[in-house]
Amino acid sequence: MALIVQKFGGDALGDKGKGRAVDNEDLRSSPPLSAEKFRHVARIAKAARDRGDQLVITVSAFGDTTNRLLRMAGALCEEPPARELDMLMATGEQQATALLAMALHAVGCPAMSFTGPQVGIRTDQFHGSSRIRSIDGARLRAVVADGRIPIVAGFQGSTDDDEITTLGRGGSDITAVALAAAVDADVCEFYKDVDGIFTTDPRVCPAARKIDRISYDEMLELASLGAGVLHSRSVEFAKKYNVPLHVRSFLHDGPGTLVTAEDKDMEHVVVSGVAFNRDEAKISLMNVPDRPGIAAELFSQLGDRHIMVDVIIQSTAHDNTNDISFTVAKKDFKRAVEACKEIAAALGAAGVQTDERIAKVSAVGVGMRSHTGVAGKMFKALADAGINIQMISTSEIKISVVIADTDLEGAVQAVHHAFEDQTEFREIEETTAC
Amino acid sequence: MALIVQKFGGDALGDKGKGRAVDNEDLRSSPPLSAEKFRHVARIAKAARDRGDQLVITVSAFGDTTNRLLRMAGALCEEPPARELDMLMATGEQQATALLAMALHAVGCPAMSFTGPQVGIRTDQFHGSSRIRSIDGARLRAVVADGRIPIVAGFQGSTDDDEITTLGRGGSDITAVALAAAVDADVCEFYKDVDGIFTTDPRVCPAARKIDRISYDEMLELASLGAGVLHSRSVEFAKKYNVPLHVRSFLHDGPGTLVTAEDKDMEHVVVSGVAFNRDEAKISLMNVPDRPGIAAELFSQLGDRHIMVDVIIQSTAHDNTNDISFTVAKKDFKRAVEACKEIAAALGAAGVQTDERIAKVSAVGVGMRSHTGVAGKMFKALADAGINIQMISTSEIKISVVIADTDLEGAVQAVHHAFEDQTEFREIEETTAC
Repeated sequence: MALIVQKFGGDALGDKGKGRAVDNEDLRSSPPLSAEKFRHVARIAKAARDRGDQLVITVSAFGDTTNRLLRMAGALCEEPPARELDMLMATGEQQATALLAMALHAVGCPAMSFTGPQVGIRTDQFHGSSRIRSIDGARLRAVVADGRIPIVAGFQGSTDDDEITTLGRGGSDITAVALAAAVDADVCEFYKDVDGIFTTDPRVCPAARKIDRISYDEMLELASLGAGVLHSRSVEFAKKYNVPLHVRSFLHDGPGTLVTAEDKDMEHVVVSGVAFNRDEAKISLMNVPDRPGIAAELFSQLGDRHIMVDVIIQSTAHDNTNDISFTVAKKDFKRAVEACKEIAAALGAAGVQTDERIAKVSAVGVGMRSHTGVAGKMFKALADAGINIQMISTSEIKISVVIADTDLEGAVQAVHHAFEDQTEFREIEETTAC
Repeated sequence: MALIVQKFGGDALGDKGKGRAVDNEDLRSSPPLSAEKFRHVARIAKAARDRGDQLVITVSAFGDTTNRLLRMAGALCEEPPARELDMLMATGEQQATALLAMALHAVGCPAMSFTGPQVGIRTDQFHGSSRIRSIDGARLRAVVADGRIPIVAGFQGSTDDDEITTLGRGGSDITAVALAAAVDADVCEFYKDVDGIFTTDPRVCPAARKIDRISYDEMLELASLGAGVLHSRSVEFAKKYNVPLHVRSFLHDGPGTLVTAEDKDMEHVVVSGVAFNRDEAKISLMNVPDRPGIAAELFSQLGDRHIMVDVIIQSTAHDNTNDISFTVAKKDFKRAVEACKEIAAALGAAGVQTDERIAKVSAVGVGMRSHTGVAGKMFKALADAGINIQMISTSEIKISVVIADTDLEGAVQAVHHAFEDQTEFREIEETTAC
């Protein structure tokens, strides 16, 4: 008998106009409630309960509720106060909890819905992007001990002053992990419209395969690099409290991907996944005088303007000047270019060059720490595919390259192919060990 | 400077498919939010604030939100647990408070939305039909003192165990009166799609006129008799805490009807209003043996079956038997008839006769206590109109007659006409006193 936290997102509970539907005839109904989807989720929970597991469930707002509420707010007020937006948005999750409790009741599972505040999810006071400070697990444990299934509204909490707050992006996933930590759950299951975490995006590389098991650190690199099935904040939270995560499909019963603390088996695999994004642009400051403190000046000034910088390279000095290149998110690009022009003039640089047509491809794996030649193998694969590398950045478990965006697909396929043998290696290991 | 509680119902904040619209172009939009209606309500509140008044606002769920949520619940569960229904229904009012706070923000009025639990509305634990036990006015007074407008979700509260409850029918009106009592407001204003309380229904009697002022007791008789602009529970609450009520239109700024404690002026008016309903049916037990305890036996058995009885008459005995007739709500009619057949057999009565085609017309006025001949005048008016009276029932401030439902319109007009002079009397008095 395990204690499991199950998290169901808006996709699992209603139609967002994307993703596969459990029951198409139900989805076009007005109100936009897919009763069959709620019933399907209730059956998933009932099956776990019938196997003898104890459950705590958490949910997002169903279907397009969140967008609908935002449209209402936008119709009334150009800049709605964050406190009032939280009051409004928190109702979406509350509705989903009550409706799921009813669906569970209908299949004979006693369930009770709770708002975040009701189960003692305390947050700081930053409306719209609060962080959880503490959860009092006592009430939840009492409900579970009483043979009922508590269903907790995700994405929300309250301050010490009893003000309702929401957690911002990825908030429902964070609620799930925090609940799992609070009740000391054996696993936190995320029911998604995908089968699990993949070695890369199957739409870009048909050879992509589901990963059976991955470490928190690898998942963090993959999440923050754009392969984000799970939001990185929730993975950080899971790592901190050592909560095993299971990313699985709400469409069928097979196993998904387990995200856990690193173990020795994982080191056999050099590269667990290949992530990529198209959301960055490159800025270069040309012929910057080569003297100490120049880079510090540049990047602290960008930091003061709340512009996040990702990959940075600095060329070798010649004629006492350097070229400094870096990437920023495309949404910050215009502001960053304006800032750089000012800074370049002040520093006595020759000028600013930009390139919005870039992409970033990253190989991620904890095995890199114990294997040599990984970078060389990756660069060779790209060279063999005729792809030019513009920038390189590395961490302990990641190698990223910036390339032309037209090369993205070919680069992902080449890197994935180069490390396919290694990823298969672990699976053979595991099979023979069984 | 007055402290005013303003209550806006679902009609004021959205379209229910009935009533006049503030802005028709907005009403057919999906989602069913009339942004212009929220803006209109915000302007009403702003005008009061600009006059120097302090406000506490309470709202119902807007438009058809409540019915939409009930349909969702019904799709998932035949008999949803009352606790879960409360969790679901409470979100409708919470959404309305947040949206109205945004609309007020947009016109430059600082406002804060609150759930019932957040402002300390404590109720008993009867989910779906809770009663308010206490309200802690401290938080509301602090918000008002701080120059802001608190907007409180109507219809809801929480138990001492922090369980969310709803107040049942008329709940939002009750919240308004309870808030007014808690903050010691000068008046509690109800913004409706009518101009106030009328002497009778204008659709039945074109001579109907708006009443300027009426006592709690008269309003209670009118509310419970079917002219229900205000729910009787909220009027009882207002009487208990002596909260003046002002029923007025959200469509224009003129005065409506003031509901207050009785004063001497009111006694000049014999009949304040003529109420009627078509919701009852008549049952007669024929030739019931005339011995003590028979009536007690009959009506206690009906009471045991939770059947409410309204008008009762018993004929004079002849041949040691009586006929006993009474009216019940049409919704209870079938059950009542079945019960009566059993009871009639047990008591040795000759049989049961029924009539569903009846109506009840009532003249209401505190002046009856000090004026004689009111009943005679009413019966003469009905006789002159050729209307046969089947049953009569009286209280200290009310005379009701049961008639054939085809006579309803003529009866209301005749009674209204008979007392028109008296209702005008007070208006003359008030004018000369000014």
